[in-house]
Amino acid sequence: MTSMAWGFVTGFFTYETTKSVVVKSWSVGIINRIVQLLIIAYFVGWVFLHEKAYQVIDTGIESSVMTKVKGFGRLDNHVMDVADYVYPPQGSGIFCIMTRIIVTEDQFQGRCAESQPNFNCSTNEDCHVHKNTLLSNGVITGICRNESGGRCEIEGWCPAENDHVTNSTTLDVKDFTILIKNSIRFPLFNVTRGNFPSSMTSEMIRNCVYHPERDPFCPIFRVGDVLNYTGQDLTSLTKTGGEIGINIEWKCNFDKDIELCVPKYSFTRLDAPFIKNKVSKGYNFRFAKYYKTENGTEFRTLHKAFAIRFDVMVTGNGTVICDIILLNFLKGAKQYKAKKFEEVSEAQIKTSPSSDSKPSLKEGMKSSCDSGAISLSISD
Amino acid sequence: MTSMAWGFVTGFFTYETTKSVVVKSWSVGIINRIVQLLIIAYFVGWVFLHEKAYQVIDTGIESSVMTKVKGFGRLDNHVMDVADYVYPPQGSGIFCIMTRIIVTEDQFQGRCAESQPNFNCSTNEDCHVHKNTLLSNGVITGICRNESGGRCEIEGWCPAENDHVTNSTTLDVKDFTILIKNSIRFPLFNVTRGNFPSSMTSEMIRNCVYHPERDPFCPIFRVGDVLNYTGQDLTSLTKTGGEIGINIEWKCNFDKDIELCVPKYSFTRLDAPFIKNKVSKGYNFRFAKYYKTENGTEFRTLHKAFAIRFDVMVTGNGTVICDIILLNFLKGAKQYKAKKFEEVSEAQIKTSPSSDSKPSLKEGMKSSCDSGAISLSISD
Amino acid sequence: MTSMAWGFVTGFFTYETTKSVVVKSWSVGIINRIVQLLIIAYFVGWVFLHEKAYQVIDTGIESSVMTKVKGFGRLDNHVMDVADYVYPPQGSGIFCIMTRIIVTEDQFQGRCAESQPNFNCSTNEDCHVHKNTLLSNGVITGICRNESGGRCEIEGWCPAENDHVTNSTTLDVKDFTILIKNSIRFPLFNVTRGNFPSSMTSEMIRNCVYHPERDPFCPIFRVGDVLNYTGQDLTSLTKTGGEIGINIEWKCNFDKDIELCVPKYSFTRLDAPFIKNKVSKGYNFRFAKYYKTENGTEFRTLHKAFAIRFDVMVTGNGTVICDIILLNFLKGAKQYKAKKFEEVSEAQIKTSPSSDSKPSLKEGMKSSCDSGAISLSISD
Repeated sequence: MTSMAWGFVTGFFTYETTKSVVVKSWSVGIINRIVQLLIIAYFVGWVFLHEKAYQVIDTGIESSVMTKVKGFGRLDNHVMDVADYVYPPQGSGIFCIMTRIIVTEDQFQGRCAESQPNFNCSTNEDCHVHKNTLLSNGVITGICRNESGGRCEIEGWCPAENDHVTNSTTLDVKDFTILIKNSIRFPLFNVTRGNFPSSMTSEMIRNCVYHPERDPFCPIFRVGDVLNYTGQDLTSLTKTGGEIGINIEWKCNFDKDIELCVPKYSFTRLDAPFIKNKVSKGYNFRFAKYYKTENGTEFRTLHKAFAIRFDVMVTGNGTVICDIILLNFLKGAKQYKAKKFEEVSEAQIKTSPSSDSKPSLKEGMKSSCDSGAISLSISD
Repeated sequence: MTSMAWGFVTGFFTYETTKSVVVKSWSVGIINRIVQLLIIAYFVGWVFLHEKAYQVIDTGIESSVMTKVKGFGRLDNHVMDVADYVYPPQGSGIFCIMTRIIVTEDQFQGRCAESQPNFNCSTNEDCHVHKNTLLSNGVITGICRNESGGRCEIEGWCPAENDHVTNSTTLDVKDFTILIKNSIRFPLFNVTRGNFPSSMTSEMIRNCVYHPERDPFCPIFRVGDVLNYTGQDLTSLTKTGGEIGINIEWKCNFDKDIELCVPKYSFTRLDAPFIKNKVSKGYNFRFAKYYKTENGTEFRTLHKAFAIRFDVMVTGNGTVICDIILLNFLKGAKQYKAKKFEEVSEAQIKTSPSSDSKPSLKEGMKSSCDSGAISLSISD
Repeated sequence: MTSMAWGFVTGFFTYETTKSVVVKSWSVGIINRIVQLLIIAYFVGWVFLHEKAYQVIDTGIESSVMTKVKGFGRLDNHVMDVADYVYPPQGSGIFCIMTRIIVTEDQFQGRCAESQPNFNCSTNEDCHVHKNTLLSNGVITGICRNESGGRCEIEGWCPAENDHVTNSTTLDVKDFTILIKNSIRFPLFNVTRGNFPSSMTSEMIRNCVYHPERDPFCPIFRVGDVLNYTGQDLTSLTKTGGEIGINIEWKCNFDKDIELCVPKYSFTRLDAPFIKNKVSKGYNFRFAKYYKTENGTEFRTLHKAFAIRFDVMVTGNGTVICDIILLNFLKGAKQYKAKKFEEVSEAQIKTSPSSDSKPSLKEGMKSSCDSGAISLSISD
């Protein structure tokens, strides 16, 4: 038992290394080194430098966006300001600038003729056919009214909206400006950055206008410019509405100066896949303002607003060299290698002569210091 | 010095390869190959095909959602349309359809009796006890009023809301429809897709209704169907409100035809973990409409709206085979292997006879061309 | 041909293993094992336990947030409730509590003098200079009015807003409470969790207040506490407005009890990078309430609201041990190793005597059972 245990202990504390053949041939040696070089170049160039596999990436960012629109415009004899044309008003990352509004004033609850031409009728029976009331402006009562040459009666808010208006005016939004305040936090590195450049004074920021080359860090955007960058036609966009994406991209390498962690703005038309489609063209929505008469009856003004919706989208990733893993690993590897050779030599000195399968270990140590191989001097 | 440098150079341009033992035994050989086959099958089957480890995945998608609700309903003798029951109106990815509203008309700033029964009192002292005014409808003044058998007086909007109404009617929303326009962009691949199927005409899209089997790509959803898919009871949901998630999942493999990059819809009840809890049951919120009297005094109508909130959530990842890495790696490996054998043979021819530790290298080359091993013909 | 094919088959079913040198030296052996131990410790400790490389991580979470604010406050002789000071009202994850409001009552469309001092003028020519109308309250008409010692005339909503008010009162929000209902779903594991602790009854939840140590799972937050946790001064924040982030972090290990999958709350000031900057200080926005006179003319009350915006942000990842890969891999490896040794021994027995390059294989098998190495008993 004791001898077996001892045998196990001595067996456990042995050092094993792979036996190698060293071919001393110029052609083989050179090709070997070239292939090794290519593999190293691939790893260093592609995996490390291009794909940044050695970095810790933080993509779980926290971001907040605050927006402020400025500008005045005339629409249907009204001068409209921010409180009139921006919705929702609270300056969130998604907001709409209404560019065209079809207003149906003073609607009261009651019964009236439908406004739309596909609800034409000559008898009450014609109005029983219309089961799908989703296209009407109210609940179809089944009665045919004489108005406008015979129209089905609806129950709901009256008079019914007539959105088949073609000559309505649009708001001239091209000189409006959008101020974007965007802060981003990388929780893994506990770094918080804002999109106001620290090199610009408050006065400079207040008066700048974003330009991709001349002023790429200015947080104020002219609406006309933004639409231009997406390649969209302002006239058709203000008429039918649409969705514009303002992307803010933060690619921050925290190994470098934090001042180099800056936003990059880009602009896309988000509803591009739907432009060709005739279903729900552009972007519009309905909202109402509610009023009360002196005697307390509620009435409303219905607005069908065609709007440009802006979506400020923030993406970002922060990186830092994973030095703990890398250094530890390299250190360990170096130590390991150093030890390996050192001890083998020591062992070799103590235990010579070696068996005939390792004819010139010490020479091998000298000539191929990167592999710990046993040299077989074939071509000598 | 020169001889040492030369020694280093010749040492550097040597080729080392591991020495192997080849056991020529049928049982060992077959088991060896079976185990290798299993390992290869594991990598090809699980890591590559199942986990798709060879693909580049883009999860940092950009997405925008536009919604449009249609339908009419009757609530408390009013015919309500979209402008009345949808909030917020702008057709965002998160919107509420109000199904029940407790209306408190014509509230003015002033003092009045609290409406809630837990503010009963007989003397002013009873109204001093109520420190936690968060449950009241206004600031407790500390006076006990005679109304309704003794109630504490509040200061605020009067009359106080009484939300202990049990027999209020609900809006019949089951036939309402929700149109969802969702566009998604994979920035890494610069691919933009919309959720309107290109195989359907505008007319078809306008008249379709989503069904998981019959019409899985129709972007129009019937509210009643959506609630059915989540397994929720329409009656209780319209009474207390709730949150429904509409998930749009894009799993796109850009190695295949882009027309196969289609959305997949699924539906969940988001407030499921809270259904059993009595705190803040369902989903409701308060909002007010503000009016002015002739003489300019502001008053309001308070609405406590019970609503179904719909959250359209878009998730997606786009993949593509990482052929650069794979092909380069394979090419390199192949070349490397080819070279290795070729040169060893060449070296072998030049430097024969070999030492006795490599008895049949050339035979080994023939019989095991995938390992570069030295063959030891044991069982022959 | 047949003999060649046979040769290939026998060659294919051979088993190759690397030849190793076993150095029987105490010092080398001990250092070898220590280095191996360090490497194993690194993998187990860092890669597996710390980085959790063996786990499947689900970061594509689905989350929904519902909020409810409670509290009353006095602002400019009004008692304000939730419907007055919270915007948007629907209880979404991002909401504002208005703390200071500059009200401009009864604005009608028309022409009037600008309110701001930088639109001073003595002649009409002074009003032609002002091209940048973004700072004004309406469209500059080019006429100089006598009012307030000479001011340029504007067209728009009149009277013009004067936001240079210094002594306006602020709402005392510190005792307001925010109830947060947050549900989270991990689609990969199909687990849904809510932020109401199951150990608390409805009554307990209703009366609790969040405290990081005493009550870390209470979903009700006192506004004053939240501002304290971010280290912000309540007075300046209520005056200029600001943005507060409420982070809910779910780090769930589904290997453990699901009741341990709980939220962790933290609080940050989101507009921290902008505090020093004078451009667009704090957080404010404008909105209007619209009214109609008896004869149908529209007028409005403009509100410039300074608000604290709360962003409830949910991050989360769910993990589970990837036992399929791990177990399969380990099983395969074990089997592979077991087979290897077994068969080598068997082969060895059949094919003795071995060549002189493998002097004591059987002894090697016994003493170093973890490497399949050929032992060279050097130090014996």
